[in-house]
Amino acid sequence: MVFKEILRDVVESVDGGIGAVIMGYDGIPIDEYVKDVAPFDIQLLAVEYTSVLKEVRRTIELLNTGEMEEISIITGLSRVIARAINSEFFVVLVLDSDGNYGKGRYLLKRDVVKLRDELR
Amino acid sequence: MVFKEILRDVVESVDGGIGAVIMGYDGIPIDEYVKDVAPFDIQLLAVEYTSVLKEVRRTIELLNTGEMEEISIITGLSRVIARAINSEFFVVLVLDSDGNYGKGRYLLKRDVVKLRDELR
Repeated sequence: MVFKEILRDVVESVDGGIGAVIMGYDGIPIDEYVKDVAPFDIQLLAVEYTSVLKEVRRTIELLNTGEMEEISIITGLSRVIARAINSEFFVVLVLDSDGNYGKGRYLLKRDVVKLRDELR
Repeated sequence: MVFKEILRDVVESVDGGIGAVIMGYDGIPIDEYVKDVAPFDIQLLAVEYTSVLKEVRRTIELLNTGEMEEISIITGLSRVIARAINSEFFVVLVLDSDGNYGKGRYLLKRDVVKLRDELR
């Protein structure tokens, strides 16, 4: 299964899904699936969140609290869930503010295994 | 109700609760409640997460996705939920890796209103 199909399956299976991107920690996207009606610039969001994830990873290493698994950022207009794929890549799922956060987290956790296999 | 009582109520009401801290974005803690058995340095964690939250707030402002509400960071050994109180302060709840994340989120969202009133 190619990356875009996995991403589309996640985005289309969750209420409020807007888009999903596979990103490198170097800020370069690998692949993405974004709905036509996306109210944000999902690409820009993914690039900007790379800085956040790098800061989080640095903090977690400093604190010795284990490997980074998932980061969620909830704002007035969006619910963003990022999940580590491996040491080089992560996947970001963007939902609108009414999106099904629990299902989004579940689908991302389930499918990150497929992404890890594809990126091997 | 004083800060520490609100924090204790949250920490003791959620399975896997370790501690909670009210922090300023300037990195100075207001009050905290930490269990005796805490496996991490909760104070250090809260200070380090301040940098993360400032980076997240900067990113959110840039992306125009509304006010920051909640950030969750899940690692191999911990589940940390941070919630904005107002423009100056936030509260951090730390759970162990088996902690009840859903209940922790719920309690923090519920009690942040009390904290906001106390900090007025």
